Amino acid sequence: MSQWKEIDANAKKWLKEAGESIKASFENKLSVTTKSNPNDLVTNIDKETEQYFIQQIKNSYPDHRVFGEEGFGDEIETLDGIVWIIDPIDGTMNFIHQQRNFAISIGVYKNGKGKLGYIYDVVLDELYHAEAGSGAFLNDAAIPKLEKTPVSKAIVSLNATWVTPNKRIDHQTLTPLVKDVRGTRSYGSAALELAYVATGRLDAYITMRLSPWDYAGGKVIVEELGGKVTNLEGEELDLINPSPVFACKPGLHEEILHKYLLNEKK
Amino acid sequence: MSQWKEIDANAKKWLKEAGESIKASFENKLSVTTKSNPNDLVTNIDKETEQYFIQQIKNSYPDHRVFGEEGFGDEIETLDGIVWIIDPIDGTMNFIHQQRNFAISIGVYKNGKGKLGYIYDVVLDELYHAEAGSGAFLNDAAIPKLEKTPVSKAIVSLNATWVTPNKRIDHQTLTPLVKDVRGTRSYGSAALELAYVATGRLDAYITMRLSPWDYAGGKVIVEELGGKVTNLEGEELDLINPSPVFACKPGLHEEILHKYLLNEKK
Repeated sequence: MSQWKEIDANAKKWLKEAGESIKASFENKLSVTTKSNPNDLVTNIDKETEQYFIQQIKNSYPDHRVFGEEGFGDEIETLDGIVWIIDPIDGTMNFIHQQRNFAISIGVYKNGKGKLGYIYDVVLDELYHAEAGSGAFLNDAAIPKLEKTPVSKAIVSLNATWVTPNKRIDHQTLTPLVKDVRGTRSYGSAALELAYVATGRLDAYITMRLSPWDYAGGKVIVEELGGKVTNLEGEELDLINPSPVFACKPGLHEEILHKYLLNEKK
Repeated sequence: MSQWKEIDANAKKWLKEAGESIKASFENKLSVTTKSNPNDLVTNIDKETEQYFIQQIKNSYPDHRVFGEEGFGDEIETLDGIVWIIDPIDGTMNFIHQQRNFAISIGVYKNGKGKLGYIYDVVLDELYHAEAGSGAFLNDAAIPKLEKTPVSKAIVSLNATWVTPNKRIDHQTLTPLVKDVRGTRSYGSAALELAYVATGRLDAYITMRLSPWDYAGGKVIVEELGGKVTNLEGEELDLINPSPVFACKPGLHEEILHKYLLNEKK
C-alpha cells in the first residue's frame, strides 16, 4: 500500500470512530464555553475529538504535524513536511443548537500542497473525500466534475451578516450579487458549505473570515472537481492565517470575481 | 377510529407513498418550467405529486376541499368546512439543485382552524406532524414544548435578500436583528424552516412572502409546541392570501416583534 493510500485508510477509520463518539455524546449534556466572543462557542466534544485525532496521528506518524482549531496540535508557522489541518467539529453552533449540520474537516497537506481532503457529515453518515489527482467521492460514489453555471442560475451561500454593516467588508459590495443570483442560502458550517459546492448543491460560497482548518479539507475536494477556492481577490489562500474565502464553480468564479468582488465594470 | 385519527392515518400513508415516488424520480430527468418569474420554478414532479394527493383526498373525502400550490385543487375563497392546504414540494429550487432540503407540506383545517399538520422531509425520511391538542412528533418521537430564548442566543432564519434593497421590506428594518442574534441561517424551504423552529434548531424564521401552502402544515406544528406563527405585525395569518411570515418561539416572538419589527424604542 502506498504511503498516501495508507494515510487515507487511517484517516477514514479515525473519522468513523470519531463520528461514533460524537453521536454517542448527543445523549449527554454538553459543556459549552466561549472563545473570542460570546458567539464563538466550543464544547468538550470539540476538544476531545481533536485530542483523539492528534493521538492517533502522532502514534502512527510521529513526524507529521497537526494544525487544529482547538490548539492541542503543533504551533504551525510553515507548512513544511506533512501537516494535518483539522477542525474536529466545524459548525459548533449548529452542533449545539441543532445536533446536525456540522462536520469533521481534515486536510492533509505536504509542503503546502493539498493531498487528501475529508468532510464528514457525522449525522447523515456522509463522507466527502478526495485524494488530489484521484477523484472525489461522496461515500463510495464518484462526484462528477463541476460544470459552468451563470450567475443568473446560481445558488450562493452567503450569510446575511455580510450584506449588513460589519467590520470585514463594505456591506454594499455583495448586494448586487444577492439581487442577480437565483437564490442565497446559509448553513453555518464552512465545511458543509464546501461539500455543497463540491456536489453542485451550491454554486458558490462566500464568507469573510475562515481559519485554515475550516476549509483545508474542502479545498482539496472542491479543487479536485475543478472548482476554485481562493480569497476575495482570487488569490491563493495561505493556509496559515484567517482569511475571507470564495469557493466556486469554474467560470462562475471568474464572473463573480470580476463583476462583483473586484467590481470591474464591463 | 375517530374522524381525525382516520384522516391522520391516511395523510401519513399518502405522504410516504408520495415520498417514494419523489425519491424514485431522482433517477429521471426533471422537466423544469418557470411560473411568476425566472426563479419561480416548478417541475413535473411538483404537479404529479399534487395531483396524487388530490385524487386520494377526493376519493376518500369527497366533501373536503384542497388548496394546492400548483392549482389543481379547488378555488378557495373561504376556509369553510375541511380544507387541505398542500405544497407538494416546498423548496422546489432545492429539489432541482440539491435533491435534498425540500419537503411535502400539508395542513388540514376545519373552518379555518388548524387540526392536522405535516412536514415530510422525504430524503431524510423525517415526518414532522401534529394534531392540534395532541402533541407534535418527529417520526415517533414527541417534540418537546418550545422554551424561551433571548435574542442574544437566538439563531434566526433570514435570507440575505431581506437585508438588501428589495420590494417587500425596508432592508434596514432587520439589520439590527442580524447584528444582535447569535447567528443567521437560510435553508430555502419554508416548510423545513418551520420544522426547524418546531424542533428548536432555529429560534425564529422571518420571511417576506409566503403562500398559505408554504406554512399551513408548519403553523399547526409550531403552534402545538407553544410557538407563534404570525405576520410581521404579530397578527394572525389569513390562510388565503400571500403574506410575510414570522414564526418564533414564545417570548422571543414578543421581543423581536416589538424591538425590531415594530421598532418600538424601549
